[in-house]
Amino acid sequence: MPIYTPPLRDMQFVMHEVFKVTDEFKAMPAHAEVDADTINAVLEEAGKFAAGVTFPLNISGDTEGCKLDNQTHEVTPPKGFKEAYRQYVEGGWPALSCDPQYGGQGLPHTVNQCVYEMLNSANQAWTMYPGLSHGAYEALVAHGTDEQKKTYLPKLVSGEWTGTMCLTEPHCGTDLGLLRTKAEPVGDGTYKLTGNKIFISAGEHDFTENIVHLVLARLPDAPKGSKGISLFVVPKFNVNADGSIGSRNPIFCTGLEHKMGIHGNATAQIAIDGATGTLVGEPNKGLAAMFVMMNAARLGVGNQSLGLTEVAFQNALAYAKDRLQMRSLSGKKAPDKEADPIIVHPDVRKMLLTAKAYAEGARALQIYCTMLLDKAHHHPDEKVKKDSDELVALLTPIVKAFITDNGHVATNACMQVFGGHGYIKEWGMEQFVRDNRINMIYEGTNTVQSLDLLGRKVLGNNGATLKKFGKLVAKLVEEEGVNEKMAEFINPIAYLGDQMTKFTTEIGFRGFQNPDEVGAAAVDYLRVAGHLVFGYMFARMAQVALREIAAGNTDPFYQAKLQTARFYFAKLFPETATLMRTARAGAKVLMDTDAALA
Amino acid sequence: MPIYTPPLRDMQFVMHEVFKVTDEFKAMPAHAEVDADTINAVLEEAGKFAAGVTFPLNISGDTEGCKLDNQTHEVTPPKGFKEAYRQYVEGGWPALSCDPQYGGQGLPHTVNQCVYEMLNSANQAWTMYPGLSHGAYEALVAHGTDEQKKTYLPKLVSGEWTGTMCLTEPHCGTDLGLLRTKAEPVGDGTYKLTGNKIFISAGEHDFTENIVHLVLARLPDAPKGSKGISLFVVPKFNVNADGSIGSRNPIFCTGLEHKMGIHGNATAQIAIDGATGTLVGEPNKGLAAMFVMMNAARLGVGNQSLGLTEVAFQNALAYAKDRLQMRSLSGKKAPDKEADPIIVHPDVRKMLLTAKAYAEGARALQIYCTMLLDKAHHHPDEKVKKDSDELVALLTPIVKAFITDNGHVATNACMQVFGGHGYIKEWGMEQFVRDNRINMIYEGTNTVQSLDLLGRKVLGNNGATLKKFGKLVAKLVEEEGVNEKMAEFINPIAYLGDQMTKFTTEIGFRGFQNPDEVGAAAVDYLRVAGHLVFGYMFARMAQVALREIAAGNTDPFYQAKLQTARFYFAKLFPETATLMRTARAGAKVLMDTDAALA
Repeated sequence: MPIYTPPLRDMQFVMHEVFKVTDEFKAMPAHAEVDADTINAVLEEAGKFAAGVTFPLNISGDTEGCKLDNQTHEVTPPKGFKEAYRQYVEGGWPALSCDPQYGGQGLPHTVNQCVYEMLNSANQAWTMYPGLSHGAYEALVAHGTDEQKKTYLPKLVSGEWTGTMCLTEPHCGTDLGLLRTKAEPVGDGTYKLTGNKIFISAGEHDFTENIVHLVLARLPDAPKGSKGISLFVVPKFNVNADGSIGSRNPIFCTGLEHKMGIHGNATAQIAIDGATGTLVGEPNKGLAAMFVMMNAARLGVGNQSLGLTEVAFQNALAYAKDRLQMRSLSGKKAPDKEADPIIVHPDVRKMLLTAKAYAEGARALQIYCTMLLDKAHHHPDEKVKKDSDELVALLTPIVKAFITDNGHVATNACMQVFGGHGYIKEWGMEQFVRDNRINMIYEGTNTVQSLDLLGRKVLGNNGATLKKFGKLVAKLVEEEGVNEKMAEFINPIAYLGDQMTKFTTEIGFRGFQNPDEVGAAAVDYLRVAGHLVFGYMFARMAQVALREIAAGNTDPFYQAKLQTARFYFAKLFPETATLMRTARAGAKVLMDTDAALA
Repeated sequence: MPIYTPPLRDMQFVMHEVFKVTDEFKAMPAHAEVDADTINAVLEEAGKFAAGVTFPLNISGDTEGCKLDNQTHEVTPPKGFKEAYRQYVEGGWPALSCDPQYGGQGLPHTVNQCVYEMLNSANQAWTMYPGLSHGAYEALVAHGTDEQKKTYLPKLVSGEWTGTMCLTEPHCGTDLGLLRTKAEPVGDGTYKLTGNKIFISAGEHDFTENIVHLVLARLPDAPKGSKGISLFVVPKFNVNADGSIGSRNPIFCTGLEHKMGIHGNATAQIAIDGATGTLVGEPNKGLAAMFVMMNAARLGVGNQSLGLTEVAFQNALAYAKDRLQMRSLSGKKAPDKEADPIIVHPDVRKMLLTAKAYAEGARALQIYCTMLLDKAHHHPDEKVKKDSDELVALLTPIVKAFITDNGHVATNACMQVFGGHGYIKEWGMEQFVRDNRINMIYEGTNTVQSLDLLGRKVLGNNGATLKKFGKLVAKLVEEEGVNEKMAEFINPIAYLGDQMTKFTTEIGFRGFQNPDEVGAAAVDYLRVAGHLVFGYMFARMAQVALREIAAGNTDPFYQAKLQTARFYFAKLFPETATLMRTARAGAKVLMDTDAALA
């Protein structure tokens, strides 16, 4: 059976030692009282919940899947899921980072991020139920009417009800401008919605008495395309004026998808057959309103892959120490045993360290990003607020695509450590691979993320935001440029930072002449940018580790961090050389291929 | 539902136009009569069988899996599998490349290779049943006694019986030296075998009245480790002197593995409880005898990934032409439709071309290798025989690891083209990913392949065989060095060939000082070597295509080949730069990580 130990030490290191988050919180009235002890206590409890309650349901949830009753349209998730959700609500976890005015605990997103990492490690399929709710909460906070807020937010915050995002239709996913679901005004301020949605995560279940669907649809007079989409809230059960549950709204689960992974989550086909909804935000501005959820969800998807990378690593490491097979090439290491543990083999170590480096780089980046998000929401200084908001917008596609692609590499590497046993379900390793695989697809495929990064976030403002991140790198280079011990961590990012500037200008120039050049370069570009960001994170972490060691701290944690950072720069970071080369190879070899793709 | 069209044109191109296999066959008495028409007719029929009989069973086989009756120890594969096997036997397919003296048709391995590619595209899980039989056939041809050959070979050739390879035990897979199954001589020339095997592909089923297990076990006086292993033939039913089926031998399937993929194949746990067997080959030389099967099986595993890459590509291409979503960045391409087909997007083309290039490179290499195998078996010139044998030994780990790793990249890319639909079972794409995943593991993990290549096949003879392959590259460079049109295909391999020589010397030197350096570099080294070999294949193919075009041939096939080759050199081949760099980063960053991997 798989194991999982919450990585509290590394979270605390990143939060308290590298980014000193409580110093940041002190500047924000909303979070000024949040101290390290509180954070650590919350994380410890969350870790217990994840490891003790949802993790034991991960394999059984995968094996069992969800069941739809075609008569009642009700869905039963795997055994134990409902009870785990009950405990989650009882523990007050849904309210953690929600606004106190709706019953929330008002803790920073940064803390919630770490809680979710652990939940994702333990059971991604289960975690998607509360995860989607949180997205619905955020969209209503940002765009809901007072009435909607009053009706739905306290229930979503307490976890009594859950939420969903109903975007995709059979003929459109990426291209939401094509969507056909209709919303007709009834005349009393409500709308009748009709249409078919697919791929609705957590779309139906028996955890709660109501489900709050946020649905994209078109008003009768709406313009074509993405500028004619509006957002509606369509509850499973209509809510009476007194807040009690009313009549069943005709928004039904008509099918569950058979998927590669995340079997424990109900991916619902939803038929909306004249269901009653109310408008969220302005008419025809639904896509913008939905993007509040989408941006948070994209950070959340990166966090899912971080969680899976961490748990896959822990299991592969344990197996590699335990499994005896062959002898070390450089002489027996366990002469008293019939063979050496496979961790003696260089390539096994490489697979393990790949996962470890991708987990630690991702954790640092995710915490950094959610700290920016907290600043964007709560910092009193408008400039800090704006800068933080821009930086998190730049980093969001990197978090989503780079961390999930790395998760693919890492979970596969960890599975490979197990040899043939990795292919067998009981060990749990192949499930991590299957569960992670959706993260590269949903909430905007990784190709879409790369276009968002290069086209919109970088070239769209002539590299202004990228330059802001570049300044952070330059600052670190300046700080540590004369420190010999830091050279191995600083030189690669200093060099890549310079290269990126030229590279960006070049791609921008080409793209100006032919926009397909942007499309041809974007995926490679995002990976290069991802390594620049991870490189920066590892340099920051190495800086702290070196200072601690210099100060006489003998905790092996710091040596471990330096070893991981060295591995990262030696074996993973160098792919940037090839990526810039293949990006520069341009669009022609892709587009002049009509015979090859006939 | 997925589609599949046998790639007959490309097979014929590689066989007849690039490698002119029938010219090679003319030199071999055993195959002198095999002409192009015969080959083409066989492939066309095989393609019909694959596309028409086993392909329609691929998804249902995955969904249904195999069932074990715990009382009788009998296994029922998915619906339709047995009937497909009956048709396969009726068509005489098992006998295709077998020796006529045992009832075979005596066709070259090269032809069988192409037949198997199509069977693998259609249904890897099903194809493993006859595939394993063929391995057992080859081991008995090479090492069986006259009695064993008389008893088993005609039945394996006709397909009346099937065969297996029983190697792995719960505590040992890679390290067969640890195996514990015992074989005690009874005194009448037979042995009683006792032990437990796992991961036995096609280990039990209801297709045939008997199953011929080839089992590795230890004799009572055997030395420890891999030098004390002997090979035995242990039939499910003992065979009477007249060839009829006798008593049930106590070699039972006691469990079926729950796997990530290849659900249609019965991966059996086998308990051997005093079963009667006879020795194959010399005592304690079982591993060498088994390697006859293993080497063939390794080429076969590469061929499995080739098959999956091809079928995944075909489906992704069809979907990319059909699915309308968003507009081209460079202006509407289908203004009459509500969106452009996604094939207009550069990154979608990149994903498609990645799969196409990996399929075509793999096909050329697989055909090249099996042609070498035919020469090694049947060429009258001893030097040609020996050279061919050495070259195929060098290329075998590359075929196994490079093609299966590429298959992983390619099947995942093709799945990604489908967006969310790629994650849904009904489309079939995620199954190609899951089925392919085992190919990177079994018959020696890809790490083991890389150590076989770098440690044994390259450094083990001071690069002598590698130099032979280098001469082929040099010959092509010399032939085409002045041809401007070939420069884009020749320059990269000429450059990489030079680099490889230095790189190999450097790694060899380091490995001499510290063997872990070989282990640290091997995986990267194999991928570099793989690209040199694929680069050579693409240059050979481009050479033919350019000649045909120069001669006025307007078949778009040749333009397609050039476009694919250009894409390959521009977007895939350049990873060699990073791989050499990371290999050179050496063992220290992997091995000095005791704190990180504590």
